[in-house]
Amino acid sequence: MREVAIVGIGQTRVEEQWDKSLRELAGDAALMALQSSGLERVDSVYVGNMMSGSANRQQHLGAYIADWIGMRNAEGLRFEAACSSGAAAFRSAVMAVASGQVESVLAVGVEKMTDSPSDEITAELATAADADWEAAQGLSFVALNALIMRRYMHEYGWKKEDFAAFSINAHANAVHNPFARFQEPISIESYAKAGMVADPINLMDASAIGDGSAAVVIVPLEYVKHDSMLPLVKVIASTAATDSIAIDQRRDPLWLKAAELSSKQAYAQAGLSPKDIDLFELHDAFSIMAALSLEANGFAERGQGPRLANDGEILPTGKIPIATRGGLKARGHPVGATGMYQIVEVVQQLRGEANGTQVENARIGMAQNIGGSGSNIITHILQVA
Amino acid sequence: MREVAIVGIGQTRVEEQWDKSLRELAGDAALMALQSSGLERVDSVYVGNMMSGSANRQQHLGAYIADWIGMRNAEGLRFEAACSSGAAAFRSAVMAVASGQVESVLAVGVEKMTDSPSDEITAELATAADADWEAAQGLSFVALNALIMRRYMHEYGWKKEDFAAFSINAHANAVHNPFARFQEPISIESYAKAGMVADPINLMDASAIGDGSAAVVIVPLEYVKHDSMLPLVKVIASTAATDSIAIDQRRDPLWLKAAELSSKQAYAQAGLSPKDIDLFELHDAFSIMAALSLEANGFAERGQGPRLANDGEILPTGKIPIATRGGLKARGHPVGATGMYQIVEVVQQLRGEANGTQVENARIGMAQNIGGSGSNIITHILQVA
Repeated sequence: MREVAIVGIGQTRVEEQWDKSLRELAGDAALMALQSSGLERVDSVYVGNMMSGSANRQQHLGAYIADWIGMRNAEGLRFEAACSSGAAAFRSAVMAVASGQVESVLAVGVEKMTDSPSDEITAELATAADADWEAAQGLSFVALNALIMRRYMHEYGWKKEDFAAFSINAHANAVHNPFARFQEPISIESYAKAGMVADPINLMDASAIGDGSAAVVIVPLEYVKHDSMLPLVKVIASTAATDSIAIDQRRDPLWLKAAELSSKQAYAQAGLSPKDIDLFELHDAFSIMAALSLEANGFAERGQGPRLANDGEILPTGKIPIATRGGLKARGHPVGATGMYQIVEVVQQLRGEANGTQVENARIGMAQNIGGSGSNIITHILQVA
Repeated sequence: MREVAIVGIGQTRVEEQWDKSLRELAGDAALMALQSSGLERVDSVYVGNMMSGSANRQQHLGAYIADWIGMRNAEGLRFEAACSSGAAAFRSAVMAVASGQVESVLAVGVEKMTDSPSDEITAELATAADADWEAAQGLSFVALNALIMRRYMHEYGWKKEDFAAFSINAHANAVHNPFARFQEPISIESYAKAGMVADPINLMDASAIGDGSAAVVIVPLEYVKHDSMLPLVKVIASTAATDSIAIDQRRDPLWLKAAELSSKQAYAQAGLSPKDIDLFELHDAFSIMAALSLEANGFAERGQGPRLANDGEILPTGKIPIATRGGLKARGHPVGATGMYQIVEVVQQLRGEANGTQVENARIGMAQNIGGSGSNIITHILQVA
């Protein structure tokens, strides 16, 4: 298997981009990544996107975006794994290059969500859950996560305010990220006052939807003539695992089994353990998901995720920095693009380009993208080559 | 790059399956393929599907279907390339196994279209075209193909009835395929009398939508202990190319440039030329597409596709048999499943299991799946190992 290097990155700010079409949005990130790679053409354009078929009335995004960015005749495919669609596209790109079938891939995640009324988007997001057994009962995505959070608080004795540290860290980091949706800090007071969405999840526990796109260009590591001042970043693990799509089908709804499986495989591929990871871009779609992710991936004991946050260990200066550029909470969560933002942000950290929130001596970073309520978990570990 | 073998196949009949949910439909083909492979588990479940997000209110099909068929914890992803979604899933599966990342993949194509009213499905299908420049003008998919067919007749002097031989061959072959939607022959008279859909495309030029699912199981060739009586089938080429998504952006709308590129690469990968292909499962969504496919892939001169059909060279006994199990026209075209049906049917031919329409001494077969009006073309060549 050939080793794979990331030679270009690009991203747009996550916001309400009503003046751009889906392809313009994707094109902005894609062309930025292409330009920074120095390549003029790529063999393949891989698109991560969840809901363009319904939200934008445009499927067939591979050809649509390849055409738009001047890559007509390249391979063009779309990858969907609900909110982990971005990582799905990146993983498939890595395998395509590793297989020798393809020499270069531009992988772009894009989602344009704010053109639709919010009740429609809530219904769209619920298509990531089980249509027959969850969505049909009227359970929205935030409601599913609220059930998990409530049970978690009951089992392990945490109070609602114990989750504030996750959101405060995310917002504090986003202040330094010009691509983040929310570039202002929040306080424990504003967390406490935030409106309730689905009890116990309030506005400050929940990531915001948005319009956004992020992209990377990958090639075989052996082909890179590395003469730039920037450290070169390579992919040292790529894994994926699923769990039941409906939460009630799980033996233990408070344990992200697929995350455990996915990260154990990733650590094995990379020959590492959790203590070797310098930063972790996790999937904090809701603060409860940040806690569960820290636990299932080996950074905290079961039920003890919030302790890490409250001890300051998730800060850029802590033992396991998370959401270093704002995370889903404050950078924003344009669902099918999020996994690609995570990869871009890990690359920035490993290159030493994470202005304001740079993790010192970062050499190994992990990104983990979650689809559904822990149903689909895709993990990547990147390292300075 | 590891060689890849197909060790299991499964399919459901294409029809109106109102009594089955999307996952039940996919499960039927998937479990048939798994059972015939002799494997109990696979590493990955790859799903080809175009429109479940809107037509079935269920995205996240990777986890959804993996869970349903008892493959919880396996990798689960969905692949979308409009009507070439089935081949997209198969191609990505081949690359995943070839890369060494994955040891076994169950690739399943599924589409459930007949629950929706036909005007809605027509609008869904138009999401494969250009949303801004084609669909927004009210151009349906059949209308786009009608424009191409009319121009083709004008340029090359063919009459409408010259296309009848494509449909007659497809229906004659489907008589022998228990999984085909239409298992009755048609005549030149019934073709001539068929109702017009979008002039000059009548009902007998157009493939039928439907509910259906097809699946294959693939593993590295080196792992196969081949002790069965059936010939073993391997993948000797997998390629993909795109063209502009909007037809008006093409220099020559009567030439499937992406098919030419995709098949030229495929012939090069396999070390073959068109005359080596024993049968060709092409994408006869409309009879004009069958003609254009024969030309762009090197089986007929430009503008001469209908001649091959009228000379009987597309019959199972001809020089280049097509639609040997009914094709999109008569087996049916459940869009995201079609590419996987094509692979299954080529395997049947190469194993000598194509009862009633067996191509004699078939050792090499090609399958080509098209997304949009020639915008996305994915080609596979399979060979007896």
